[in-house]
Amino acid sequence: MDAEARTTQTGHPRVVIVGAGFGGLQAALDIGKQQPEVNLTVIDRTNHHLFQPLLYQVATAALSPADISTPIRHVLRKQKRTEVVMAEVTDVDLEQKRVIMHDVSIPYDYLVIATGAHENYFGHRESWEPIAPGLKSIEDAQQIRRKILLTFEQAELEMDTEQRKRLLTFMVIGGGPTGVEMAGAIAELAYQTLPPEYRHIDPGMIRVILVEAMPRILSTFPKSLARRARKKLERLGVDVRTSTLLEEITEEGAVAGGQWMPANTIIWTAGVQASPAGQWLGAETDRAGRVLVNPDLTLPNHSDVFVLGDTATIMQDNKPLPGIAPVAMQQGHYVAVVIKQKIAGEQTSEPFHYHDKGYLATVGRAYAIASIGRIRISGFSAWILWLAVHIVYLIGYDNRIMVLLQWAWSYIFLKRRVRIIAPSTRDNPVPDPAHNNMPAAEKTEVSTIPGQ
Amino acid sequence: MDAEARTTQTGHPRVVIVGAGFGGLQAALDIGKQQPEVNLTVIDRTNHHLFQPLLYQVATAALSPADISTPIRHVLRKQKRTEVVMAEVTDVDLEQKRVIMHDVSIPYDYLVIATGAHENYFGHRESWEPIAPGLKSIEDAQQIRRKILLTFEQAELEMDTEQRKRLLTFMVIGGGPTGVEMAGAIAELAYQTLPPEYRHIDPGMIRVILVEAMPRILSTFPKSLARRARKKLERLGVDVRTSTLLEEITEEGAVAGGQWMPANTIIWTAGVQASPAGQWLGAETDRAGRVLVNPDLTLPNHSDVFVLGDTATIMQDNKPLPGIAPVAMQQGHYVAVVIKQKIAGEQTSEPFHYHDKGYLATVGRAYAIASIGRIRISGFSAWILWLAVHIVYLIGYDNRIMVLLQWAWSYIFLKRRVRIIAPSTRDNPVPDPAHNNMPAAEKTEVSTIPGQ
Repeated sequence: MDAEARTTQTGHPRVVIVGAGFGGLQAALDIGKQQPEVNLTVIDRTNHHLFQPLLYQVATAALSPADISTPIRHVLRKQKRTEVVMAEVTDVDLEQKRVIMHDVSIPYDYLVIATGAHENYFGHRESWEPIAPGLKSIEDAQQIRRKILLTFEQAELEMDTEQRKRLLTFMVIGGGPTGVEMAGAIAELAYQTLPPEYRHIDPGMIRVILVEAMPRILSTFPKSLARRARKKLERLGVDVRTSTLLEEITEEGAVAGGQWMPANTIIWTAGVQASPAGQWLGAETDRAGRVLVNPDLTLPNHSDVFVLGDTATIMQDNKPLPGIAPVAMQQGHYVAVVIKQKIAGEQTSEPFHYHDKGYLATVGRAYAIASIGRIRISGFSAWILWLAVHIVYLIGYDNRIMVLLQWAWSYIFLKRRVRIIAPSTRDNPVPDPAHNNMPAAEKTEVSTIPGQ
Repeated sequence: MDAEARTTQTGHPRVVIVGAGFGGLQAALDIGKQQPEVNLTVIDRTNHHLFQPLLYQVATAALSPADISTPIRHVLRKQKRTEVVMAEVTDVDLEQKRVIMHDVSIPYDYLVIATGAHENYFGHRESWEPIAPGLKSIEDAQQIRRKILLTFEQAELEMDTEQRKRLLTFMVIGGGPTGVEMAGAIAELAYQTLPPEYRHIDPGMIRVILVEAMPRILSTFPKSLARRARKKLERLGVDVRTSTLLEEITEEGAVAGGQWMPANTIIWTAGVQASPAGQWLGAETDRAGRVLVNPDLTLPNHSDVFVLGDTATIMQDNKPLPGIAPVAMQQGHYVAVVIKQKIAGEQTSEPFHYHDKGYLATVGRAYAIASIGRIRISGFSAWILWLAVHIVYLIGYDNRIMVLLQWAWSYIFLKRRVRIIAPSTRDNPVPDPAHNNMPAAEKTEVSTIPGQ
């Protein structure tokens, strides 16, 4: 196949989708199914679609990365006119209608921007992100997993009590659903799964702290459910601190609510910032960088450019829609229909409307909270619901039954089977006992079996 | 728990095992079971025991790293007087009887060195290893997986035919069991699994080459079996080149048998070099760095130091024992018994003798060869045997049933589910289309759907 063969078949419209998250992938699947004649290109920085809601399970060693990611081109393999490109988009030329990737570009007739969001460090990204990673990518999750597991190895060798306490303190910043799920999973891992396998770690020294600036956690959930979730977290051993503003993060710990807390592992889930797509488009955005879109999800003055998911913001019932997977997926469905209507020269039937199917969050093993319309559920029944919903929505995952079995295994036996400390770009994988703050006199004896 | 508590209980002997591969872990399990009063310390650079024989399945995206690794301390969790230390051993002081890890050390009464081996690049490690990784660690396997998957992404975007051919050429250096298994698995991945998901990759352009310096592959196997394995490899599309000496490796390809072969992915399985333990011990070694041990696996003149597995060499029937898992495991069993006898002040009963249970190797999906005594089996029945043996020997793997299911899934449906291209310390994960050698004239059009 030579370069000559690679020209767009003229007469067929060309749709480019940037980002294969929940919104972008849904749009790609719908377009492939409903408009097989369209030339579709899906561009993503990675080669995989990631089931982000389960990323905390990777971070806490219950699932492998592959359990929650699937190659984008595998999902779209049957759409013969769909092409998948692994590349980084750097700009959009709205005049020339081209998507730019460094110094190459491709043309579009219709463009869908679904590039998602990343953590918002509120002006401290440079100094805080390396210490307190967020939970948006496989790499993030692996970094957190490595940090948690490595910290236990270091604590096992550490002779200084204060240092050992610091190593065994885990802080989660942000009491939204991700922070709550993360804190619950860390508590189970740190209090229940790991200690029996160490000889010098006293579970009484371990602390898991959840820091939230607002007066309560889970502010998008009804108050009664948030209260129950807090109780459950506290039963798991999490120190929940609401109305506590984070002020500073250093390698040694954090200052929150005016108090210095030594901690080795800090995880950031306190806010999201949209991808830089707003800048590519020169568009008006809200404070979090989300593009203000028309009711049909198009960019103002550009009826051929759509923005959806966490990259866009749109009001419904006087509130902005939340940045969750169901919103992005419904928007993906909607955009596919609107593009079909535009290609056919029809009027767009009606503005986008989100059908709220409710909210779900897990708090540790076999406990969840659910808010569906006026119904509130918590406990095991909510967790079964959570499980069912998450299995159904694992888009294109051939191995969803396998993932279900892995979960069942982890949950029933409290196993955390994915406990490899792999080398990282950032950490040294092998703890050097000599670098611990051991008193000089003990430096020759790294650690020995306690007499008993 | 403070430092005071960490003193060896006097009167109980202290055994230190360095390395938790097949040999070291087996010795640790046996000592824990048979001599619960011994203070045992197991030191390893990583936190996991690795089931190396299946590493090629990780490298070819069929299994996740966690499927073939298990935390060492999890395996040994029930041995209350066993301590696991994740640290790098740098030397041994035979006079003072201490194991040194950078600038700390621990004492031993009996020492077991089971630190394994790594690739032997025959003097070219510095220049060849970064280009042609081996297959000894999780990191190696992940690097190879990333390279194979990324190369397909790059080939999909590449406009230059020669470059595309180079990208789609995979070379395996070394025709031993690992090389054969690797070449077979790459052939299935490259010819069968991946191409249907790409739009611009012509399977006719893909080449998998196995290079072996000796006149035949699998020189440790009977000739008849090696011949059958070669035929099977060739049916899978592997270009098997025996009597072909590798002369040079560069970023662009390799010279083998006097011929320049452009190739993007080169994998090294051509020889092993023992760990530096021989240097720590100041011991006499063979050319591959393996320590020459006494018939009872002790170091000459040091009856309290044992060396086993790939780190040692010992003759039996006028041949050195092969560097395979069953040898290391039997040596681990043996050493545990000898240490028990020494502690009890008894004579060591008899020298180590390896009970040969045969050889097994897989060649692609559902095909293996087996040599057991005088019995030779090949094909599906040998593969079933291979499967059974490998499942039985997954030491301490809670999830061996899960791994079996993953395999069955992969094998039956030709799936390669672990296809994440994760960031690496060495590569840039996002291929930049502009960096491909595209003719300047085409630089503005990265790739479009072929007209059809």
